Formats: sequence, C-alpha cells, structure tokens
Amino acid sequence: MLGYNGRILRVDLSEGKTWIEEPSEEFYRRYIGGRGFISYFLLRETDSKTDPLGPENLLIFALGAVTGNPIPGAGRHSVGAISPLTGGYGEAEAGGYWGAELKRAGFDAIIIKGSSEKPVYLWINDGRAEIRDASHLWGMKTKEAQEAIRKELSDEGIRVAQIGPAGEKLVRFACIMHDITRAAGRAGLGAVMGSKKLKAVAVRGSKPPKVANPAKLREISRWLAQNVERLVRSLHLYGTGAAMDIGLQTGNLPVNNFRGDPFPNVMDIDARTLKKKYGIRMDTCFACPVACKKVVKIEEPWKVDPAYGGPEYETLASLGSDCGIDDLEAICMANQLCNAYGMDTISTGATIAFAMECFENGILTKEDTNGLELSFGNADAMVKVVEMIGERKGMGDLLAEGSKRAAEKLGKGAEKFAIHVKGQEVPMHEPRLKRGLGLGYAVSPTGADHCHNMHDTALNSERIANELRSLGILEIPSVEDLGPAKVRTFYYYVNYRVLNNVLPICLFMPFDLVHKVEIVRAITGWNTTAWELLKAAERATTMTRLINVMRGFKSNDDWLPERFFKPHRSGALSKTALDPAQLKKAIKLYYLMMGWDENGVPKEEKLHELDIAWAIEKIPI
Amino acid sequence: MLGYNGRILRVDLSEGKTWIEEPSEEFYRRYIGGRGFISYFLLRETDSKTDPLGPENLLIFALGAVTGNPIPGAGRHSVGAISPLTGGYGEAEAGGYWGAELKRAGFDAIIIKGSSEKPVYLWINDGRAEIRDASHLWGMKTKEAQEAIRKELSDEGIRVAQIGPAGEKLVRFACIMHDITRAAGRAGLGAVMGSKKLKAVAVRGSKPPKVANPAKLREISRWLAQNVERLVRSLHLYGTGAAMDIGLQTGNLPVNNFRGDPFPNVMDIDARTLKKKYGIRMDTCFACPVACKKVVKIEEPWKVDPAYGGPEYETLASLGSDCGIDDLEAICMANQLCNAYGMDTISTGATIAFAMECFENGILTKEDTNGLELSFGNADAMVKVVEMIGERKGMGDLLAEGSKRAAEKLGKGAEKFAIHVKGQEVPMHEPRLKRGLGLGYAVSPTGADHCHNMHDTALNSERIANELRSLGILEIPSVEDLGPAKVRTFYYYVNYRVLNNVLPICLFMPFDLVHKVEIVRAITGWNTTAWELLKAAERATTMTRLINVMRGFKSNDDWLPERFFKPHRSGALSKTALDPAQLKKAIKLYYLMMGWDENGVPKEEKLHELDIAWAIEKIPI
Repeated sequence: MLGYNGRILRVDLSEGKTWIEEPSEEFYRRYIGGRGFISYFLLRETDSKTDPLGPENLLIFALGAVTGNPIPGAGRHSVGAISPLTGGYGEAEAGGYWGAELKRAGFDAIIIKGSSEKPVYLWINDGRAEIRDASHLWGMKTKEAQEAIRKELSDEGIRVAQIGPAGEKLVRFACIMHDITRAAGRAGLGAVMGSKKLKAVAVRGSKPPKVANPAKLREISRWLAQNVERLVRSLHLYGTGAAMDIGLQTGNLPVNNFRGDPFPNVMDIDARTLKKKYGIRMDTCFACPVACKKVVKIEEPWKVDPAYGGPEYETLASLGSDCGIDDLEAICMANQLCNAYGMDTISTGATIAFAMECFENGILTKEDTNGLELSFGNADAMVKVVEMIGERKGMGDLLAEGSKRAAEKLGKGAEKFAIHVKGQEVPMHEPRLKRGLGLGYAVSPTGADHCHNMHDTALNSERIANELRSLGILEIPSVEDLGPAKVRTFYYYVNYRVLNNVLPICLFMPFDLVHKVEIVRAITGWNTTAWELLKAAERATTMTRLINVMRGFKSNDDWLPERFFKPHRSGALSKTALDPAQLKKAIKLYYLMMGWDENGVPKEEKLHELDIAWAIEKIPI
Repeated sequence: MLGYNGRILRVDLSEGKTWIEEPSEEFYRRYIGGRGFISYFLLRETDSKTDPLGPENLLIFALGAVTGNPIPGAGRHSVGAISPLTGGYGEAEAGGYWGAELKRAGFDAIIIKGSSEKPVYLWINDGRAEIRDASHLWGMKTKEAQEAIRKELSDEGIRVAQIGPAGEKLVRFACIMHDITRAAGRAGLGAVMGSKKLKAVAVRGSKPPKVANPAKLREISRWLAQNVERLVRSLHLYGTGAAMDIGLQTGNLPVNNFRGDPFPNVMDIDARTLKKKYGIRMDTCFACPVACKKVVKIEEPWKVDPAYGGPEYETLASLGSDCGIDDLEAICMANQLCNAYGMDTISTGATIAFAMECFENGILTKEDTNGLELSFGNADAMVKVVEMIGERKGMGDLLAEGSKRAAEKLGKGAEKFAIHVKGQEVPMHEPRLKRGLGLGYAVSPTGADHCHNMHDTALNSERIANELRSLGILEIPSVEDLGPAKVRTFYYYVNYRVLNNVLPICLFMPFDLVHKVEIVRAITGWNTTAWELLKAAERATTMTRLINVMRGFKSNDDWLPERFFKPHRSGALSKTALDPAQLKKAIKLYYLMMGWDENGVPKEEKLHELDIAWAIEKIPI
C-alpha cells in the first residue's frame, strides 16, 4: 500500500478526556469515510439498549478520503449517531467549510461518547484537542455562539459546528449547524449533541492534506469549471427550488401535508422569485464553483439576516407549500429561526403541516395552540410555531417530539396525518409520482430520506443518464415503473448515491462515476476502481441495515404512510397512487438483490463477501 | 451512446447460407464479447436436447471489444459450443492473429449452426463470406491444410482456424487450431466443428477497427512496453513452464496421473532447458511485446518442425511429468502431433496418464495396447498413443472418448483413475496445494479449467496482489485457506479472470483492472467502469451456469476426483489433502455469493440484477 491513512479523534465527555487513534491504511481503504466510518463505529460500539439520548450513544463527525482536498464537491462530511427520532441508524450530511477545516487540523473523524455534567465545547487546533467550558454559550442562538467562540479564541477563521437552543432542549429533530448555514439536518443529531451537553466543535487547521497526484486533480477541476454552467446551470444560477411550478404540475411538490390540494401562487415561493426579490448573492462551499447557496436579505415584514443564508428547496416546500403557505417572507423568516435554533427545516415544516391537519380535524384546538388559528396557509402562525418548537414552549413541546410521537400522544386518529417513515418526516418529493423514490423512503436506514435516493423523473436527464450508463444501466425504466427493472436501477443508483456520501463528494457535482474513481485514485494513490468503491458503499449500507436490525427494526418498518396509497383529490395525481402490493414486492426484491433475506436481514454470505464477517455476531438470533 | 457496435456473421451449414446481423450498441455493451457472446447465444438458441455433435449445436467464434485493437493482449478470442466432452457449456480461448484478422474483416463473431453433407470451409474476406468445398482438404494435418488454403486463395496472409484429423474423427477432446500453433484447446470444440463437416475458417481483413481515443491506447501501450520485462520477465524469456523444479518441490506439478510420485529429472523438461537445447526464437501474438510463445526445432530422435511452435507448461506437464516422462524430445514430438492432428494437449496427456495407470493395474493389458508397454515413463509408447488417438486407431479409439467415457467403458474400477471434472480432464495444477483452484475446478462451467481460475500460490506476487487490491481484496488469504475469506477472494478474482475472457485481454498482460477499464473506454468511447465490466463478467458466468442447469447438471456435478482427498505418498503433499467437508462448504458459499441457490441454480433476483430477466424461462421447473 502507499501510506495513505489518517487520525481519528476520540472524546469521552463523561471522563473529560480525548485521545487519538490511527487506524491502518486497510481500514481507510475498506471504509473510506462518511457513512462507512459512522456505521462501522456505531455497529461496533453501540447495541440494542443504547439510549439515543444517553451517554452511551456515540456522536460521530466523519470526513472521508475526498473531504478538504482541492477538488469541487470536497466540502462535505457526515454526522451520525443512534437517532432519537427513529431509534435506529441516524446520519446527516453537511457542506460548507467545517469538514475541510477539520481535515486541515489533521483529523478524519471525531468520535464522541459519554456526556458532560456542564456544557462544554471542543476546541480542535492543528492536531490538538481541548474540552472547554461552554456554560456561557448555553442558550445562545447559533450566530451569537459562533461569534462568541471566535472572539474567545481570538480567531475569526475558526469554523464552528454547533447546536442551537433546540439541540440543548433535545428537540428530536434538532440539527447540527456548521458555519451557521449548513445543517447536518436530519435524524435529530442536534438532540444527541445536546444530551451530551456539547455546545460546539470549533476547528482550526493549517495543513492541507497530502495528494498523491495533484496534476490529475487539477485536470479534473478544470474539466468541471469548464462544464459547470452547461451541466448544472439552474443550480449555479438559483440553487435548489427553481422549478416549483413544474413540481406542482407533475404532482411532485407537496401541498397541505401531502394532500395535493390546489396551490395557485406557487411561483411566489420559487427560487427564481426569491433570487429576484431578496437574493443578495450566492454562497458556496469549499473549493466549489457551483455556488448553489442562496443568501437572502429581507427588512420587512420580517427582518431576515443574510448571515443565516437562505432557504433550500426542501425548506421552501416544507415551511411553504406543504403548510399551504405562499408567503415567501414568512418562509425565509422561519428558515432563519430553524438555523438559529438549530432545527431540521424538513421535519419542522412537516411536523407543523401535521399539526395543521390535526387542527383542521379538531384533534388540536385553539386551546392547544395558545389561541393560534393553525390552519393551512397561515404564515404568521407557522412562524410562531417554529419558535415555540425551538423553545419547547406550549404546543411546541409536543411538536418537538416529531410528528410520529406527537400523533401517538394526541391519539384520536392523528396518526394518519403524521407523514413519516420510521419516525422521520418525509421530505418534499412525492412517492406517488416518483415510485422508486417511494421504495427509497421505505428502505432508507435513516427513515424517509431524499439524498440517498432515486428521483425517477430525473433519470432521463443528460447528467443522470450518463451516470447510470457508467453503472451499466443502459435502458432507463419509466417513471411509473416499480417492477424488477426499476428495482435494479434503484439498487445500483442508490448505492452510487451512498458512494457520494462515503467519499464524500457533493451529489450536485456533475461528475460521473469515472471522474469519482479518478478523484479517489489521485488523492490516495490507491489503484482503486469503481468495483471497490461501490462495494465500499454497499458495505456501508449493509452495516446501517445491521444497526437497524440490531436495534429491533423489522421488515414491516420499511413501509410508507397510508396516504401514499390513495390518489390526490385533484391535479396530476388524482388518478394514480402507489400500489401497496407492488411496493411490497419491490421491497422484497430489493432485499434479495442486496443479499438480505426475505425479512431484510443481511445474510452471512453477504457479510463474508463484503469483508465484514466480524459483524455476523451483531445479527440477533 | 456513441455509435460503437459491429457485425455478427451467421452461417447455416445445413442450408448452405450466410447472413449478417447487426445487434444494437446496448447488446455490445451488455455482453461485450468472448464468453459474454457465446453464453448469450447458446442460452438463447440451444436447449436440453441439443446433441453436442448434432447439427442443432452452435459453434461460435467470438471476439470482443478489445480484440484486434492496437494494444498488447488484444490478440485473443474465444470459441464455444455445447461441449461433446462435458455435455454442458464448452468454450476455449486462443491467441495469435486469427481474431485480429476477423476483426479487420469486419466481424465480431461467427455463429455457425447446421452441418454440411460434404466437407466445407468458410472463406471470409473483408465483410464477405463464402462457403467453399473442402473435400480435398479433409484428412489433411493442419500445416498441410493451411498451406493448401493459402495457395488456393493465392494469399499467404490468410489466417486459418481449422480442425485436424482428430476433429474430423470426432475425438472428444479435439481442438481448433489457429495459425497451427494456437489452440482453442479445451472442451472438444474441434469435434463440434468436425460434426459440422467444417474443416476451416479462413480469414482476411484490411480495415483496422475504429478507436475512440487512440492517444490513450498509445499511452497504455507505452506503459506496458516499459514495464513488461520487470513484471513478466520469466514469461518474456522462456514462456510458460520455467519453474518446473519449484512446482515439483511444492507439489503443484502433477506426476504419474496426479499420484505425486518422485520425478528426479524434472529440470530435463523445464522451459529453461528447452529454450537452451532447442529454442530457435520466441513467437508472439498480435500487438504483443511479451512474446511468450516458444518455437523449437529438433532433428533427432524425432523431427520436430518449428512451424508447429513448441510446448507450453500444460503440455510439458501433461505429456511429460503426469505420464512420468522426462524425455523432452518425445514431449515436443507429441506436442507437434497434437497440433497437427488438432487435439487438446492437456486432455491428451491426462487421458494417456489415465491409461498408464489402468495398464499398471491390469485394467488395460498389452492386448488392448497393440503390444505397447504403456507404463508411466515410457516416452515412445506415449508418442505412439497420441497418434493412435488422433487416428482413432486401436486403443486410440477408446481413449479418443476422453478419460471419463473410457473409464466407464472399461469398468473394473478404472473410474478412480480418470482425473476429470464433468468429463473434462484436470489441468496441470494440484488442488491439494492450491485449494481455491480446487474450488475453481469444481465450479467451472467448462469442467476442470485453469485459465478462469485462481492460483493460490501466486496471489502474493507483486502483480497479482496489485490486481487483487484493485478489486478491494486488501488482505490475501493463505494458500491453505479454503474458508470464507478464500471464497470471497475466489469470487472476486475469478470474476476478474472471466473479464479477461470477455473483453478479451490476454491474462498474461500485467495490466491491472484500472488499465483494463481504461482500455475499453479508449476503444469504445463508453464511460464504462470496473463496476459495469465486472458485472458483465458475472453476467457471463451466470449465463454459463444457466446453460449447465438447462443441460441437466446438478450440484453434485461440481465435485473433484476422489484422488484429491488423499495425500500424496511422498513429497510436499504427503501430509495434506483437500478436506471434502470443507470443499463442500466452500462450494455452497460460492453459490450463495454468486446469488445462486443452495443447489447452484441462479436465483431470479440475480437474473433481474444482471439485466438478463429474459433468461428466467431457461431455468427448468
């Protein structure tokens, strides 16, 4: 081998100590990073009894081979833990600069166990780590806390990963904010960090990682710079959310808690409108020429601070159309509150949409809502509820548990309005339209997820069709298909999306698999191939599955809310819905293609094949 | 896609007609060539009742994407049919110039069905094909026939694939000779050609294939030229068979029908000795700087004609040590006879070794042998028997059926001396030493085979270890191991060896998987990856398996001769042998890793995953 490996920082907050581990090069090559690292350590070091909010849970920040190297898309990392939202494998990715900074500080991952008695933060500076008091930061919103830390350490260049008040208060869908605009949003990782009384991880590093073949990396970067406008023009101009009208027409855009009601003013919340009215510039991540991050500034009726960036598509839909809201200013304000309190915008919006439908059906009343008229379309009420959740005040305390738990507490049939999988709220893409995506929601290890998933309507685009061919998918199944050809495409393509996470490379980069293999080869010097890398992704997915099996998940947890089996009342999806029998069949076929048994439990031969025979003992008898 | 595809020549000898098919680019990308093409057409167009020697059998000559392109290792092609030796999938590879010539003539494959009443040969000249009378060629040895064809067509540059007298007489291990020195040796394909009364396929072509990225091909060729001496020095100097002494020491070299008796004069038959005593030059294949083909010339006591090349390792062992013979001149003579008559040297030698052990045990007597003292070590007798088999004279008629059928006819316990798998004689590598290779003998679709197999003792060499890493095999299991780690290594590595066949690229080229993917990409313009290519290899292997299932093979046909479960009487393997229980377990685990059921039948989900759902109907109910 060639001497590529790195260092992992271990932290025990109960003991107040840190230490460093240096795994072998084989470990790095086998697990690579991101989900590969996180699932490895969670599978090894947690068990069926681990309380997601107890000190025995691990919180893992994981970079990968690519993070922080001079190549577009390298600004990514993942954070993971046993999720307080699902009880199973929890993980979320983030972009920005924090990951690259940690790489330059000499670490590939941070694994945090235990919990502190008093609030603390972690200060990592060029290979050294220190646990510092954070009592004075506790309760601060994210912008305030970031400023305080930079001031206290006298360095404006420090990169901060942190929780806001929502994480401190164990909101089950609290997120971890990086650079105060990049959320590791999903799975409630902010609550795990809060349970450990860890306010922040502040990082500074000055040593660029070694690259085996810098000329090759430069060549690929040049190719991207030359092709970025052609291949991802809309992202480059507007970021995500620039085709809301088409999403509404096809039925993909969720309206009123996925009920699919009319939403006439859809263009009011489109990213093109947003840019024109309030966009002040586009922000970007480490080494990236795409620059897809909106920055918005509003003075009235809400004061929206550009320091908090701007809303993504998921946010425009979850706090917008899914709540029946076409008030762009209110959505931007709610987005800012989510970033300041540190809450996942998808789960926040979806949980409010759930509450709105409960209100419409008399399951929640004005007595519950502190007098708010919590109807679909009420923007002021939505903004207030976001804040109530962040503070766990009034009804916010109930909703802070997420829609699944809130519905269980409310009873009275509220469950049917909770649009979640495994406890995690469904993102803003319609599985009645994108059927492979529906399969993906059902089988995703983290509960409903849109990132490591297949968007059926996009498969025919030049860019994705090209990626599919590089995987050997030569004929693209139709959007409606959910038969074996679609399942095969899903298996290969989602595995490829998981590879994006494991390397990690931002999935918005218009590289195909050929480029990605070349990037890893250029960075590490390994003679690696698409075969090896995709097997690493499959290994990671199988480890996440094993974690969920270990945590007691069964095959029937891989399922969708009943709503998706009935058509919309009007619009494009008024005559079509998912067929549960077909979905069940697709799920089983996916299990079998993955080398799992009919109940979704990975088979021994697959663990041998993936070189993780050590994990056999993790399968409950 | 990019416009890469080609033409397939169809021939019906019963009807006396030829036509051309032009499959889609998707077809080419999915099946690529070699075993991919052959297994596709055999699976589609033969069935359980196809008589290997009847007109309904197909004889398929298959090039691949790489054949005939300007890159070392591109001089390969495969020939296939339902095997008269095994009754199942039959296929053999050859090098030389014939494949490249066919490519330049504008074809990627020839599929021949039916049978002619009178002897014919096929004449293919730059896109045109003609069936011509061969009555005057019938009965000729290969050198004579090649000269006659070239003379008749007035072109010394014509490349000829042909059968000799052995193929005409349906010797079950008759081969197809190319350039009279390159055998598509195994599986009895010469008998299939003979049954069709097809003496030869003569080819001339003048149009080099299109290359998408010639500069990249040149770059890779340059790399090889610079590294060939370092990486394959021994092959370059001596060809195969230059370490017979080490093979004897470790127990790998078969002696006396795999009995492992002492063989003191091993160096007498070593390739280094051969080169020194009789080597006149090294021959090479299309575009190849390795030049591993020995050319020998002997005047006495046998006249050995350099036109017939020289013996490979397999031949030196099968007609040499495995028959107890250390008479190098006799071996060279027997090799020449095999090339002239068109017989597989492995099966020829192994069948004679079988006969020698029968003779030793009184199952064959001098009455049977025409008075020959057919003892181990009797070189003169061996040479005579080779000729008798080629002519099907006397005892040669029995031995021409191969060791399995001969043993069945002889009875009296002869079966235990027939060292074959599925009817095909075992090549010259000892499975008691190389245990993964033993697994490979058992599960190979063609019966015992050493080419698409793993040589456990070589895995730690710089070259193979590098190839293994490119597949994600980071830790190499020990030679003795036959547990799950070895089975995983076998699954990945043998699939990679099958890829060599499918592309095809000569397995002696010291390219790793990274190079091979780049070569295919440069030739075709496809954005292909190791994932797609290794899946194409897996697809081919699964199709070969389906053919054998269709032909009635069962799991217990995947087994080795009893001899390998007992140690040698002396030497390195006197205390060790294969453990049948462990082998059984390894075979089952291999099935499961391949996505086959416990009986070795490919599962539906695997056929869906490999994009060959059309083949589901081929599985007998």
